[in-house]
Amino acid sequence: MIRSRELNATLGPKGSPGAVELVCDLHNTTANMGLCLIAYSDCDWICLHIFRHLQRKMPDIPMRYIHFDVPHKESYSLDSVGKHGFAMEIGPQPHGVVRSNVYAAMKAGVQHMLDWVCFFNSGSTFEGEYVDVFTMIKHIDYPRDRETRKIRAAIHPQLQDQDFCLLHPEDPLFQTFSGETLRYKGDEALYPFFINECAYYEKGIALSLARKRPDQTCQNVKNSA
Amino acid sequence: MIRSRELNATLGPKGSPGAVELVCDLHNTTANMGLCLIAYSDCDWICLHIFRHLQRKMPDIPMRYIHFDVPHKESYSLDSVGKHGFAMEIGPQPHGVVRSNVYAAMKAGVQHMLDWVCFFNSGSTFEGEYVDVFTMIKHIDYPRDRETRKIRAAIHPQLQDQDFCLLHPEDPLFQTFSGETLRYKGDEALYPFFINECAYYEKGIALSLARKRPDQTCQNVKNSA
Repeated sequence: MIRSRELNATLGPKGSPGAVELVCDLHNTTANMGLCLIAYSDCDWICLHIFRHLQRKMPDIPMRYIHFDVPHKESYSLDSVGKHGFAMEIGPQPHGVVRSNVYAAMKAGVQHMLDWVCFFNSGSTFEGEYVDVFTMIKHIDYPRDRETRKIRAAIHPQLQDQDFCLLHPEDPLFQTFSGETLRYKGDEALYPFFINECAYYEKGIALSLARKRPDQTCQNVKNSA
Repeated sequence: MIRSRELNATLGPKGSPGAVELVCDLHNTTANMGLCLIAYSDCDWICLHIFRHLQRKMPDIPMRYIHFDVPHKESYSLDSVGKHGFAMEIGPQPHGVVRSNVYAAMKAGVQHMLDWVCFFNSGSTFEGEYVDVFTMIKHIDYPRDRETRKIRAAIHPQLQDQDFCLLHPEDPLFQTFSGETLRYKGDEALYPFFINECAYYEKGIALSLARKRPDQTCQNVKNSA
């Protein structure tokens, strides 16, 4: 809490004219998500253009734009403190471990982001483009024991590591510790992500589900400041 | 320390006639090691026969027998408290995460071990067989900053996840955070394992190296008690 206030004082205050222009918060995950930009806006042209720039520069890295559709006031992460901001999330990498390929991809992503900011500040024009946006719809918790709240199943082997592969109704979702398969009971096919993220067990999130909206436009932009 | 003494009192005392017959200590690792039995002896016929039994019963799981060649007095892990004992190590699995396939393999391994003990106690005869034994030769630490002791390289991408694939002199070993490749300077090809295990950063172990000795015999055995 103390650290949050310090960061808000240094980089914000959030929502104020004095807040910094851009905050990029670096994360890694045990989920097989490749490199994702996670933002609270689906129409922040700076975030969308940076995303397209990274996609072009790093064609070998699976890359997605995730939109957390919550009001700005309810946004809670570091990147929400700036005027523009996003989290750069990369995986899979166990917590407490450095994997060279993951480190190299994150380093390249940060460098390309800084390059884009330099181009923009130098007056470069960026043409409008299309971006697929994954909008988070809901989280799904593990099946838990009613009394102890301990989990009684893990992610199904057929779903493990299949982040961003469409999950259809009746597809396997969990495997209980006695071996039973539990299926996805939603009535709409959605895209799973953050599948089996270590830090989300305590948050009650086994995976999140997103709807994909293709062709979100990021308009032509030029820094006219 | 208190817990160690409690366990030694309950299952040991280590080295005494009152120690339990068999201790199996269950572990998981971020290294891509499949299922390994790790023992302080390369000629404990109970451990070797249990290993062969698991190999036969679980043909789809990569399985190795690792020998830590240290005197019994210096052995430090739980399984050294029993008259016979080994660790069952499985990976890759991030710490703090349950992966269904890893859970299922460990569960099956434990069940097959208990089955073997039942067969043995019922008077079954087990014929002599051959086992490949990987004897641990040495550990290799990460390159570190001389003053801060922080690591300045990670496991090389070409070595990551290649546990038990022979490492030859001059093969890539580490990649520094500035991108330089550091090579294996040993003069003997050895088998790497525990590559990039999360809990071993603080122990100063980036990987361990083993020599493979094929055809260790486990003799015919029958419980004549």
